[in-house]
Amino acid sequence: MGDAALAKEQLLIAFFQEIAPETLDDLRAKFPRTEISTVKLKSGETIPSEVARKATYLVTYTNLPNPEDTENIKLIHFVSAGLDHLIHHPVFRETAIPITSSSGVHGPPIAEWTVMNWLVASRKFAVTYEDQKKQAWHGSFGRLQGVHDQVGKKVGILGYGGIGRQIGRVAQALGMEVYAYTASPRPTQSSRYDSGYIVPGTGDREGRIPVSWHHGTDKASIHEFLSLGLDHLVISLPLTPQTTHLLGAEEFALLAASTPPRHAKPYLTNISRGKVLDQDALIAALKSGELSGAALDVTDPEPLPAEHPLWEAPNVQISPHVSALGVEYFPRSLDIVKDNLGRLERGEDLINAYKRGRGY
Amino acid sequence: MGDAALAKEQLLIAFFQEIAPETLDDLRAKFPRTEISTVKLKSGETIPSEVARKATYLVTYTNLPNPEDTENIKLIHFVSAGLDHLIHHPVFRETAIPITSSSGVHGPPIAEWTVMNWLVASRKFAVTYEDQKKQAWHGSFGRLQGVHDQVGKKVGILGYGGIGRQIGRVAQALGMEVYAYTASPRPTQSSRYDSGYIVPGTGDREGRIPVSWHHGTDKASIHEFLSLGLDHLVISLPLTPQTTHLLGAEEFALLAASTPPRHAKPYLTNISRGKVLDQDALIAALKSGELSGAALDVTDPEPLPAEHPLWEAPNVQISPHVSALGVEYFPRSLDIVKDNLGRLERGEDLINAYKRGRGY
Repeated sequence: MGDAALAKEQLLIAFFQEIAPETLDDLRAKFPRTEISTVKLKSGETIPSEVARKATYLVTYTNLPNPEDTENIKLIHFVSAGLDHLIHHPVFRETAIPITSSSGVHGPPIAEWTVMNWLVASRKFAVTYEDQKKQAWHGSFGRLQGVHDQVGKKVGILGYGGIGRQIGRVAQALGMEVYAYTASPRPTQSSRYDSGYIVPGTGDREGRIPVSWHHGTDKASIHEFLSLGLDHLVISLPLTPQTTHLLGAEEFALLAASTPPRHAKPYLTNISRGKVLDQDALIAALKSGELSGAALDVTDPEPLPAEHPLWEAPNVQISPHVSALGVEYFPRSLDIVKDNLGRLERGEDLINAYKRGRGY
Repeated sequence: MGDAALAKEQLLIAFFQEIAPETLDDLRAKFPRTEISTVKLKSGETIPSEVARKATYLVTYTNLPNPEDTENIKLIHFVSAGLDHLIHHPVFRETAIPITSSSGVHGPPIAEWTVMNWLVASRKFAVTYEDQKKQAWHGSFGRLQGVHDQVGKKVGILGYGGIGRQIGRVAQALGMEVYAYTASPRPTQSSRYDSGYIVPGTGDREGRIPVSWHHGTDKASIHEFLSLGLDHLVISLPLTPQTTHLLGAEEFALLAASTPPRHAKPYLTNISRGKVLDQDALIAALKSGELSGAALDVTDPEPLPAEHPLWEAPNVQISPHVSALGVEYFPRSLDIVKDNLGRLERGEDLINAYKRGRGY
């Protein structure tokens, strides 16, 4: 042992692309007592023994070492929110190394993406954008007929987690009413508490923003929620067998049927996975006007092929699964590591810890 | 007299275009005890005697009657926020009829327009918008390099009135820090109170959102404000001789000089009037990169002619003075009338009352 106890901790970042030099500079400033090294590997590739054995902390996305190379590793942190792509790996099943996720870092960028799409649609941004390209000042308001704002509008958020809560926070500031939907009941204040990582200054830690909470995994409960007279429906659920094709023709019809007078028909936002809805039914609902529009960061399949009818469905705004993107992603994910290293040292519970045996 | 006391009150709307039938339906529901009639007149045209003399309440934009035709009029309400276009009219100078403005109705739409433009710029909406037109799914993140969010960013709001406050409210929800600037000092909680009309569920009535307040009408005070390390500067000042060309090359350089490391250069939003800034200096600052972009709903002149260099300045987003637009405008303006009719009846102070002799 001897000097070994004095050796610096080693934080290894295993990723499929180079980490930008300025990001590494920032990380070194964030972890002054820790050596930081990186290894670039193909998606899913095993981390080589000689690299893994030096690491005391591992930050990764799809790369893990063999269990026998993990003896120095005290923490494995994933830069993704979900861990489902790796929970069957031997490191999950055969070791007791604490594992943490980046759940919570997606709130601000995805909420911004969502609100941007709402406003682009409701304020007809494309009209003035196209006019500007033509250097045309069209003061006539007829071109912007139907422009409306979000004050007093109702947004239903299917899946009131870290992302849904930041959407709720901004929606409330815009003057909207927020309706939360969760799988399990949240009848008490403590059951509404968000104990995961939250980007400082954002979110709804206490769960006080919604005007009402709704729950259930059965069709009747979902249908009741869709009949509240919602102007917006946001889908921020995980994709599971239960949520696959959760929304289809029947659900879109229910949404449309309860629209208040003088309001635009409901607007759908999907930031979950393409398969949570019946995409053919979505296209039909947009064509019939049952839905006034949709913002989709996810489709089925991805990439969405050219010529697919979804590209040209009326009032649809599609982006290629980029809503979480931003220069803040990596630094925020490493903020969780920094926080957890302090917790490890003090023997406290970790934030965003994976609980072995719960299966997600 | 006799039966006259039983006659319904008469609310006359004088406007330059027809009021939509569904808007009139809504107004009749809002004022069940009042007859509502409309007159369509050219901009600035005098309301004909026989029309004006029947009115007990007048709602107008640019049309007023002759003073001798106002004997039945108990309230004149303007659908604009400013009244400066008519304060020299004899009705202002020679009568004592209560006059009210629509100050406050612009908060939500202009705040939405502002935040939409910020997010369109910072999240590079145009990239995915153009890709969608080509039915191209570009999953490669290189195309969206530099996308960032607003968390922790500083927004300075020059003119923290009804519009600035709703921008502040949404900015805070996005995780931003709000810095307020006003002409006169607001050192106490009561001096920060907004006593005008506020659309319910919006704004910052108490003035509690800013992390700090700044003030002054001299160059040194403005320059100090511009040196706070702002990521955003929003101009929501009235145009006066003092605010004409308030911002020019020197001010843009000061803004740029205090940008925090790793942050994009400041982004300018102008929702005031084109002439509050030196537009040539703005174009130069956009070209040099001192400003990372600008959202302009106002220009100098308006309409902005085709071929004007502002149209193609880097990262500029221009709309034709439409940021306040929306189906809610008229109904909200009439909410003020409804509130004030109750106040007249009860002998209370009116909301948004014009104070004769103050000159604005």
